Amino acid sequence: MKPSGKTLELILKDVLSDLISDEVVVGVSNRHVHISQEDLEKIFGAGYKLTKMKDLRQPGHYAANETVTIIGPKGKMDKIRILGPVRKETQVEISMSDAFKLGIKAPVKESGKLDGTPGLTIVGPKGTLEKEKGVIVAGRHIHMPKFIADIKGYKDGDMVTVETSGERKALLQNVLIRVGSNVVKEIHLDMDEANASGASNGAFVKIIRD
Amino acid sequence: MKPSGKTLELILKDVLSDLISDEVVVGVSNRHVHISQEDLEKIFGAGYKLTKMKDLRQPGHYAANETVTIIGPKGKMDKIRILGPVRKETQVEISMSDAFKLGIKAPVKESGKLDGTPGLTIVGPKGTLEKEKGVIVAGRHIHMPKFIADIKGYKDGDMVTVETSGERKALLQNVLIRVGSNVVKEIHLDMDEANASGASNGAFVKIIRD
Repeated sequence: MKPSGKTLELILKDVLSDLISDEVVVGVSNRHVHISQEDLEKIFGAGYKLTKMKDLRQPGHYAANETVTIIGPKGKMDKIRILGPVRKETQVEISMSDAFKLGIKAPVKESGKLDGTPGLTIVGPKGTLEKEKGVIVAGRHIHMPKFIADIKGYKDGDMVTVETSGERKALLQNVLIRVGSNVVKEIHLDMDEANASGASNGAFVKIIRD
Repeated sequence: MKPSGKTLELILKDVLSDLISDEVVVGVSNRHVHISQEDLEKIFGAGYKLTKMKDLRQPGHYAANETVTIIGPKGKMDKIRILGPVRKETQVEISMSDAFKLGIKAPVKESGKLDGTPGLTIVGPKGTLEKEKGVIVAGRHIHMPKFIADIKGYKDGDMVTVETSGERKALLQNVLIRVGSNVVKEIHLDMDEANASGASNGAFVKIIRD
């Protein structure tokens, strides 16, 4: 047998790359709120702690039992779920349909990139919060574990395309790869994107490199 | 000059084909109702005629001043606009988000293909209508004038892909070509599709052949 010229490490990487599927599970995000501990206490009371309703796919993340009302210039929406754990900054993620209903010009943004985003009013059982910023339409993204990114050659910040299936099949472009250590491989789409492309929660879509 | 071997007709067809853009204007459909004259009279009164609020892009089609309430097992939606003129059969077009809110399992269907579709309740100022069928999520489609279809080689029933632009750009597959005589070239998308792909009303998207 002719030597391949590859080191054992490179051969193993090729083998593993073939083994790791290009399919990724879909997590559909309905409108939700991430909240800081400080803001939580303002609308739920001093010392309040979020309580878990159910775990999400990403380790440590959960849907809380707590919900709030969000209010914009043109409308309000009740029973908007808080996702835990608490974060450094409060962030409200809505769909474009929601943005229209609320009358808020929410930009498509990566989570946490809140500079220049519009605000809104958040109402809890013990108080009302006027936020100056924090409302976004979350850009579609894939949580990618670092070991898979290393093997497959993805870098944090890469943009890829994903392909859905079924009668509304589509190629969704500009999907951000977010590489992390303690994450599960999962694509996050909002309700508009899921409905338009037939990618339901728990289904699989295929990653295609641009 | 060497003779091309083409007839004048074929040469002209090639020239025209290059001249006719592959871009198509987007019409975004919000939830709406097409109604039969018989059903209209049941909920607006005997002899009632639809009145025009504004013309739509397709010749003869218009948004009526009249609206109705639609009710499903899990919810209701007010102020749903009727589109005129009246049709042979009443048909309610909603988005998947709407279907979820109403609790109706509406299938993705071509307009007019109502066999096996679910029903709902429609309420007007003078009465209530219980429909056994007629609720669909409209499949995305392009109205294509016959002369353009002839020149470009599209047949009624062809499926194409369209490409949107912007930060949510996408390739929407399975777009039905509907060839007609008295139509304007226009793609109809619903709110979910428009929001997910950045294809706003009046914008242009590009047709790509599969």
